Amino acid sequence: MLESFFRPASIAVVGASRTPGKVGYDVLKNLIDAGFKGAIYPVNPNADEVLGLRCYPDVPSIPRTDATRPAVELAIVVLPAKAVPDVIDQCGEAGTRAVIIISSGFKESGEEGRALELELGRRCAKHGIRCLGPNCLGVISNADKLNASFSAVMPPAGNIAFFSQSGALGTAVLDVCAGESIGISRFVSIGNKMDIDESDLIEALGDDASTHVILGYLESINNGAKFMDVARRVTKKKPVIILKSGRTAAGARAASSHTGSLTGSDAAYEAAFKQCGVIRAQSVTLFFDYVRAFSTQGPPKGNAVAIVTNAGGPGIITTDTIESSALKMAELSPETRAALAAQLPRGANVHNPIDVLGDAHADRYRLAIEAAIRDRNVDSVIVILTPQTSTEVEQTAAVIADAAKGTPKPILASFMGSFSTERGARLLEERGVPNYAHPERAVQTLNAMYSYRRWTEAEPAAASAGLPTIDAAAVRAVLKENKGARELGEHQSGRIVDACGLCTPASILVRTAEQAVAAAEQIRYPVVLKISSDDILHKSDAAGVKLNLTDEEEVRMGFARIMQSARAYKPEARIDGVLVQQMVRGGREVIVGMKRDAQFGPLIMFGIGGIYVELLKDVSFRVAPLSRAEAVEMIEELKMSRLLKGFRGEPSADIGAVVDCLLRISQLAVQFPELSECDLNPLVVFEEGKGAVALDSRFSIQQHG
Amino acid sequence: MLESFFRPASIAVVGASRTPGKVGYDVLKNLIDAGFKGAIYPVNPNADEVLGLRCYPDVPSIPRTDATRPAVELAIVVLPAKAVPDVIDQCGEAGTRAVIIISSGFKESGEEGRALELELGRRCAKHGIRCLGPNCLGVISNADKLNASFSAVMPPAGNIAFFSQSGALGTAVLDVCAGESIGISRFVSIGNKMDIDESDLIEALGDDASTHVILGYLESINNGAKFMDVARRVTKKKPVIILKSGRTAAGARAASSHTGSLTGSDAAYEAAFKQCGVIRAQSVTLFFDYVRAFSTQGPPKGNAVAIVTNAGGPGIITTDTIESSALKMAELSPETRAALAAQLPRGANVHNPIDVLGDAHADRYRLAIEAAIRDRNVDSVIVILTPQTSTEVEQTAAVIADAAKGTPKPILASFMGSFSTERGARLLEERGVPNYAHPERAVQTLNAMYSYRRWTEAEPAAASAGLPTIDAAAVRAVLKENKGARELGEHQSGRIVDACGLCTPASILVRTAEQAVAAAEQIRYPVVLKISSDDILHKSDAAGVKLNLTDEEEVRMGFARIMQSARAYKPEARIDGVLVQQMVRGGREVIVGMKRDAQFGPLIMFGIGGIYVELLKDVSFRVAPLSRAEAVEMIEELKMSRLLKGFRGEPSADIGAVVDCLLRISQLAVQFPELSECDLNPLVVFEEGKGAVALDSRFSIQQHG
Repeated sequence: MLESFFRPASIAVVGASRTPGKVGYDVLKNLIDAGFKGAIYPVNPNADEVLGLRCYPDVPSIPRTDATRPAVELAIVVLPAKAVPDVIDQCGEAGTRAVIIISSGFKESGEEGRALELELGRRCAKHGIRCLGPNCLGVISNADKLNASFSAVMPPAGNIAFFSQSGALGTAVLDVCAGESIGISRFVSIGNKMDIDESDLIEALGDDASTHVILGYLESINNGAKFMDVARRVTKKKPVIILKSGRTAAGARAASSHTGSLTGSDAAYEAAFKQCGVIRAQSVTLFFDYVRAFSTQGPPKGNAVAIVTNAGGPGIITTDTIESSALKMAELSPETRAALAAQLPRGANVHNPIDVLGDAHADRYRLAIEAAIRDRNVDSVIVILTPQTSTEVEQTAAVIADAAKGTPKPILASFMGSFSTERGARLLEERGVPNYAHPERAVQTLNAMYSYRRWTEAEPAAASAGLPTIDAAAVRAVLKENKGARELGEHQSGRIVDACGLCTPASILVRTAEQAVAAAEQIRYPVVLKISSDDILHKSDAAGVKLNLTDEEEVRMGFARIMQSARAYKPEARIDGVLVQQMVRGGREVIVGMKRDAQFGPLIMFGIGGIYVELLKDVSFRVAPLSRAEAVEMIEELKMSRLLKGFRGEPSADIGAVVDCLLRISQLAVQFPELSECDLNPLVVFEEGKGAVALDSRFSIQQHG
Repeated sequence: MLESFFRPASIAVVGASRTPGKVGYDVLKNLIDAGFKGAIYPVNPNADEVLGLRCYPDVPSIPRTDATRPAVELAIVVLPAKAVPDVIDQCGEAGTRAVIIISSGFKESGEEGRALELELGRRCAKHGIRCLGPNCLGVISNADKLNASFSAVMPPAGNIAFFSQSGALGTAVLDVCAGESIGISRFVSIGNKMDIDESDLIEALGDDASTHVILGYLESINNGAKFMDVARRVTKKKPVIILKSGRTAAGARAASSHTGSLTGSDAAYEAAFKQCGVIRAQSVTLFFDYVRAFSTQGPPKGNAVAIVTNAGGPGIITTDTIESSALKMAELSPETRAALAAQLPRGANVHNPIDVLGDAHADRYRLAIEAAIRDRNVDSVIVILTPQTSTEVEQTAAVIADAAKGTPKPILASFMGSFSTERGARLLEERGVPNYAHPERAVQTLNAMYSYRRWTEAEPAAASAGLPTIDAAAVRAVLKENKGARELGEHQSGRIVDACGLCTPASILVRTAEQAVAAAEQIRYPVVLKISSDDILHKSDAAGVKLNLTDEEEVRMGFARIMQSARAYKPEARIDGVLVQQMVRGGREVIVGMKRDAQFGPLIMFGIGGIYVELLKDVSFRVAPLSRAEAVEMIEELKMSRLLKGFRGEPSADIGAVVDCLLRISQLAVQFPELSECDLNPLVVFEEGKGAVALDSRFSIQQHG
């Protein structure tokens, strides 16, 4: 469907202008200059001709030249915002399939604009017209000689597609592409994303043969589920690299005042990107660094890197960076070392990093690079050059480019310098070898490529088969009984946890000391007493918990004290009573939670022990529904995960039970959208094979209307 | 003293050659080409004349032209390694004060070279000659028109001094300086650092008026104490930025095979750099990024940053990066906001980031930048430009440069682009405004500048006044009694801890169950029993600890079990007996340790709780002797430090007692160099005012010979 944007048979520029510097002029001029082969129709009621083309007063006046096609396939609109909805009706009449609304003054400009954008959306839907923008820069498709944008710069042709939510950042990126020979297949400025959004584009670009890498700059995502569905598929075919801003709270505020979009939590984006294989560039620098390599080289099969260098110092720096990443220094095979020792001069290092010495000419580089490529222990090569007296910069660049051409193993270069290395660097660029001014950046890029390779090889997240199921009817019953509640107390929450098939400690809600003693005897000593009140969520703060009570006397005293402290803590609190609970001993405390994200829906959270979560932010997130592999990853990802695996001679915790709990809470969240938050805190995990029990839980319910 | 290297009256090039491409030719040619004003004497027995200069057969043949000066003040030696020591004798005869040994083939090349370097050192010492190298590139001093190196590139003049332990990295940096107009005052390649090392240079460059910033690349430091002493003083006057490689174990191995130096632990470097205000660049990219700003702008007074941008997206990215650093987004004053609102068009954002909108000309940037500078809530400004249709790139660059000239507040620019921004970027460079292709790097640089500013304003680390003292005589007595031991068991270690004025639990060493019961009664129940054996250091692994024994029966049984398990664990272990110890309850466990680093001497270590140390590597290090402020920093620096400060309603721990302990262990380490390692693990810290007690300790003793 989006093909009408990239390769239309005919284009109308509605609001074409004869005044250079005006957007209506620039767009038309760009269309003509880029050499578009189809029909171009300027539309402007006050002109007969613009830039040598016949001008029409409105879209319906444009004659149909081919009975099988509409008169205007794509319309580009540059009129003031208020005039735009009516133009859509005209386009509808002319059979137009696609419009690009460059005009601003919509959602991004306040209430009035927001209303106008809603109207615009209605008109497009009515006529079945797909719309890009409003408030965008337009579209470029190099293969189709189409520049339907007001970008002053036309980037060179290449295999990278780039879409941007920010017009200005789009401009800056195109400017870098033009200045540094980075080739673009298609560029799309998505503006306010009223209709066509990032997911539509990733889908379309995934099928575009001229595009090998998809790049995007995003400040928000319209529809998280759609994005994940599309990205999960497309990333298996080609890399999708996203620069997403609004990481911090202040950044998110700036983003939302800038585009008028709700941005959602960055943790959700981070989780969603991981779950669908999107490569997230953490900075603009990395964005470009990644692009250079992903567009020219295949990702490495494994993580073993060989370094070839004419300088020891940079070799050490590179080694440091490799060792701090998921990559490792390749262990060269005895054959490779023997071959290097035989051919390189005395003093050269034939271990990795391979040091060809400061006086190395290009031929010595060739020897070393070829030996490294041949070595089965080597998955990729980084070639470092410093400009010394006898260094042959350009010849060495040619040697590297030749080597890169003959092997599927990625080769990245780092020519360190400027004055003497510039022409060599240019040559590498032209011949498709990514080159980095500093070797650390080559390593970071290679690391991202390796991680992408693992994604493409991983089994797709399994479907629901084999996942645990929950007792939905029982959950529904609890929710029905508590209709109108915004928060469920511990007792009601416990019933939901039970219905999910998870263990909870035996517990009885009581209102008097007498009842407490009876309950304790039924449950068996020792027991725990806990205040039960929807108004007291942090029970410890209210001194509302007594642990390990071993006889009747302790239970009586505990009951009295808890009631007293709770009243002192919050005199107005409505108190349901006190929960008498089996005392659970031993095990490791973990936290399982769920929060509903505005963009991505239910976000499952996992952490080990309260203090790590609070002090270290050592938590992991994934968007539900979770696959079993994703649940396992959530645990592995934590810095403190070793605590669960038999740290310091302790027995390993029942990690299977944690995975099971994550999967059940994921099911619950997916099946009951009215649950807005939940917290199992703590879930106590016993040693392997002995399961886990949810000691305390809390659910929040979304009230509609 | 080093002035003879930078501005000698006369120079001999020993090993001058007539063959272009040879080092002996390049050095002489560079000297002549750079326009050196003093006398230049080629020395070569096989030539009468080189490059138009009269050539001498040896150094003593060079005639004295000024009775008050030696015939040759500086000699540059480019002969094969073996011939070098005799040249030193000749130089001694000629009254030479300084030699640069460019020749390689010394320590870096193996045993034979190592011996030759020792000999070279002896000859230099005998004649009182200072030596740079061997195995180095030479020296450049721009102010003195001196290029006494074989660098093919002469960097432009400026205020940055740069020394490098790697010749190749030196070359690469000079090449970047030449290509990107980064001005150098002095360049020194320090090679093997046989005599002159990084500390000598930092000292000398600290006093050099032409140098405003000192840069260095290091793989190792010769003498940690000397380095810290010098750096602590010089960094108060001017920034010292160091790129230190060998961060990882593999990197350190590569470094030591490259230069033949022992590199010491990276933790020690990191600690030493912090303690003496050295700015550590974590990558080559940051190295250059820092240089650009530190050499042109003063550091900001505070951490509030204003952003001026013509693009929303990059503004958000920059906000994210600021919020993730020690910097913060400035809150603009109402006056500034009013002024901006009055002068900028509708739609412009007058909060920070200040968005001057995509169609901003240079004058709108001027308004916004000037308003930001005037605002007392703003300490620094980052100006972002993306090249849009009406953007005036060069005029905006001029506006920024003008503004930067008129204010002490640092202004950093980020012109995003390449094709359209290149000339603007060049103009900024020329006019001394640091410019970054991506705004994140401007933020990171500003963050380093702010941190440097705080260092220059901090009180110098106090002298020993007011620090706690230890009972050195008592420590000496313990060490004497245990002469020959490599490890002290818990009992002897406890005596040292006592002598340091730290608390230890009451404890008695016993050999029978009877004695254990008697000891427990003397100490009072409850008690702890611990195996005491120098051969069993990890007591828990041997099941050699029983806690909380409350009566005679438990003590008897505990004693029997411990002896049994210890024998099973390690049948050959020599067992001193069992330690009966007061049971200490409550408190937070921390670890205080000391390890002697090869370069920096005693390194004090602090961590909270064993699992954080092991799993999170959440530990801090400082080189002893510690000041009180440094001891406090060691605690603050930990991710888990909040655990000590009354986290979640618990009372705050006695942090003063921890500081006291760190200071006492620091004293101990300084006064007793024979102690190679120590561990107080755990030190139990009680609530504020209640002190701390070292529950277990361990000392290792260095045996000489």
